[in-house]
Amino acid sequence: MQWTTQDIEWMSQALRQAALGLYSTSPNPHVGCVIVKDGQLVGAGAHLKAGEPHAEVHALRQAGSQARGATAYVTLEPCSHYGRTPPCAHALVEAGVSRVLVAMQDPNPLVAGKGIAYLQAHGVEVSAGLLESQAQALNPGFVLRMTQQRPYVRLKVAASLDGRTALANGVSQWITSAAARRDVHHWRARSCAMLTGIGTVLHDDPSLTVRDVASTRQPLRVIVDSQLRMPLTAKVLQQGHALIAYAAASTPAAQEKLARLQALGVQTVALPNGAGQVDITALLHTLAQQQINEVMVEAGAVLNGPMLQTGLVDELLLYYAPKLMGSAGLGMFALPDYTAMSQSLALNIVDVRHFEQDIRIQASLR
Amino acid sequence: MQWTTQDIEWMSQALRQAALGLYSTSPNPHVGCVIVKDGQLVGAGAHLKAGEPHAEVHALRQAGSQARGATAYVTLEPCSHYGRTPPCAHALVEAGVSRVLVAMQDPNPLVAGKGIAYLQAHGVEVSAGLLESQAQALNPGFVLRMTQQRPYVRLKVAASLDGRTALANGVSQWITSAAARRDVHHWRARSCAMLTGIGTVLHDDPSLTVRDVASTRQPLRVIVDSQLRMPLTAKVLQQGHALIAYAAASTPAAQEKLARLQALGVQTVALPNGAGQVDITALLHTLAQQQINEVMVEAGAVLNGPMLQTGLVDELLLYYAPKLMGSAGLGMFALPDYTAMSQSLALNIVDVRHFEQDIRIQASLR
Repeated sequence: MQWTTQDIEWMSQALRQAALGLYSTSPNPHVGCVIVKDGQLVGAGAHLKAGEPHAEVHALRQAGSQARGATAYVTLEPCSHYGRTPPCAHALVEAGVSRVLVAMQDPNPLVAGKGIAYLQAHGVEVSAGLLESQAQALNPGFVLRMTQQRPYVRLKVAASLDGRTALANGVSQWITSAAARRDVHHWRARSCAMLTGIGTVLHDDPSLTVRDVASTRQPLRVIVDSQLRMPLTAKVLQQGHALIAYAAASTPAAQEKLARLQALGVQTVALPNGAGQVDITALLHTLAQQQINEVMVEAGAVLNGPMLQTGLVDELLLYYAPKLMGSAGLGMFALPDYTAMSQSLALNIVDVRHFEQDIRIQASLR
Repeated sequence: MQWTTQDIEWMSQALRQAALGLYSTSPNPHVGCVIVKDGQLVGAGAHLKAGEPHAEVHALRQAGSQARGATAYVTLEPCSHYGRTPPCAHALVEAGVSRVLVAMQDPNPLVAGKGIAYLQAHGVEVSAGLLESQAQALNPGFVLRMTQQRPYVRLKVAASLDGRTALANGVSQWITSAAARRDVHHWRARSCAMLTGIGTVLHDDPSLTVRDVASTRQPLRVIVDSQLRMPLTAKVLQQGHALIAYAAASTPAAQEKLARLQALGVQTVALPNGAGQVDITALLHTLAQQQINEVMVEAGAVLNGPMLQTGLVDELLLYYAPKLMGSAGLGMFALPDYTAMSQSLALNIVDVRHFEQDIRIQASLR
């Protein structure tokens, strides 16, 4: 099947619908749908929240009887199984939609292709793959969770132009501008979990909540705290759900700390790596099991380095402020003592943008 | 006097002429001239090399008799004194030019305004200030040398995105791409002097010459070498003129080193700062006395830091390669152990540009 310029336009509309749920849809994927009859838009919908109707249902409701003989543009293959809502593939057939364009197949290998097959079996003309990469890009975490049982990991660092995240005495507020810090909250808002290390908690006592952005939910706060040094009064524990990953709780003091954390409603999980540290890869898989799609890391060099070395960091958000803090300051990534240039970690720069006087470099590991 | 769009166009032409001498004119300023008669270009010229005719002379020669009653656009006030060439203000009057537009006055306080006054005294209509800042920008070093008896200082650093200029073992070849390194040679080509520290010489043995760029001259190589540790075989001494600034030569070995360097034709100058180091500010004034307009610093953190602290660095060229070398690597600037964020050095980012996968950030000290 050939796609027309109109098809591309309508699928773009569906993708814009999908993006409406960026801060709210998880653990479900971001999905949008538009229904077009005789070249006119007759219905549009987005899946905004798990448990609520899917995008197709909203669009079909709006289209009403005009759905008969219409074309539906859906950013993700319609479901064909009974979940918290009835299957959308059935609803499309019942409404009499005659043609369905799908951007991407369902990444869940257990159901992939079944929705399309159901539609085709019921006489609906189906075409898949239109703007597929754009649809994938809207759901990087959902896709990775379904295909690799791990979340999408985004790591943010704010530094001076000489690569320092804090002065030698730990002072780091504020390196970057208000505009750059506001941008960070957009990324937090789309994250299912914020991840940091106990060092950052002890030094900066951040809350790691979403502020400055209209969002109804707060991400899970995840803290890597091998030796259970977490203060019970830490801000990161105060506002809602938190998870502490530790290596061992072999002392009575550690056992008591565990009990007190659990009494506060904090989830605790032992994930030793055999070297007295938390196994970060195992932690990421644990988060995926808890339906975490996107994780944002805001930590110090001590955790940032090992995080990168897992090979599971998908994206770096590097904010640079126009200042020099000097070599006495703290670095961005604690990495092994490389002896050859080829050992250094190679990145691909994806985007460079200005926020007031700051620069944001978006990169991926090569 | 009001300037017309045509005036701006012609002065832009004159500025482009001036830029032709970017790699060759120093210690003289970069100057361009176009002569326009009845809306037509009749002459154009650039000052390309000290000792050779000035821009106005080239343009007048080309214009010939058409210069009578014409307008001359000159990026720098025409000279009125006898130097190595006869005064251009006289030549313009003799050729019968009736109107002269000048971008910037001569920055030399001893002659400033005299050329304009001569022209006016001989019936020539003169207007100054059109595209003045562009003309200034072509001659930052010449202007500073005339007004503050110091050169323009440009400091270049190539680093990884985590602010490292070398691995812990000193390996630094190559951090940045071939495209970024080629760009560096353009900046070297316009510099009258390259400045580095003995640490860089001992570690990397650079030649600090201009390569990959069509240029007929090589910059003076200046090395800050407080204790005269310079090896006589260093590449930086091999190709032409070099200057070593040292703090003291009180031992017989140091005296012998001095004598051997001088025998090689190397200029040596004692500039102690009272703390056993070279007084960098004094060194910059010494270079200005030697008619150095623009200095480019390519050194390590140990010299880069104190260099910045003189307050005499006008421009930073920061090249970032898309790699992470880790906190064990060497930093960009050795600065004091700041205890408050307000002590860090604030920059203004002037330009951000891509060179293959690398990013160049051009900044000034705020």
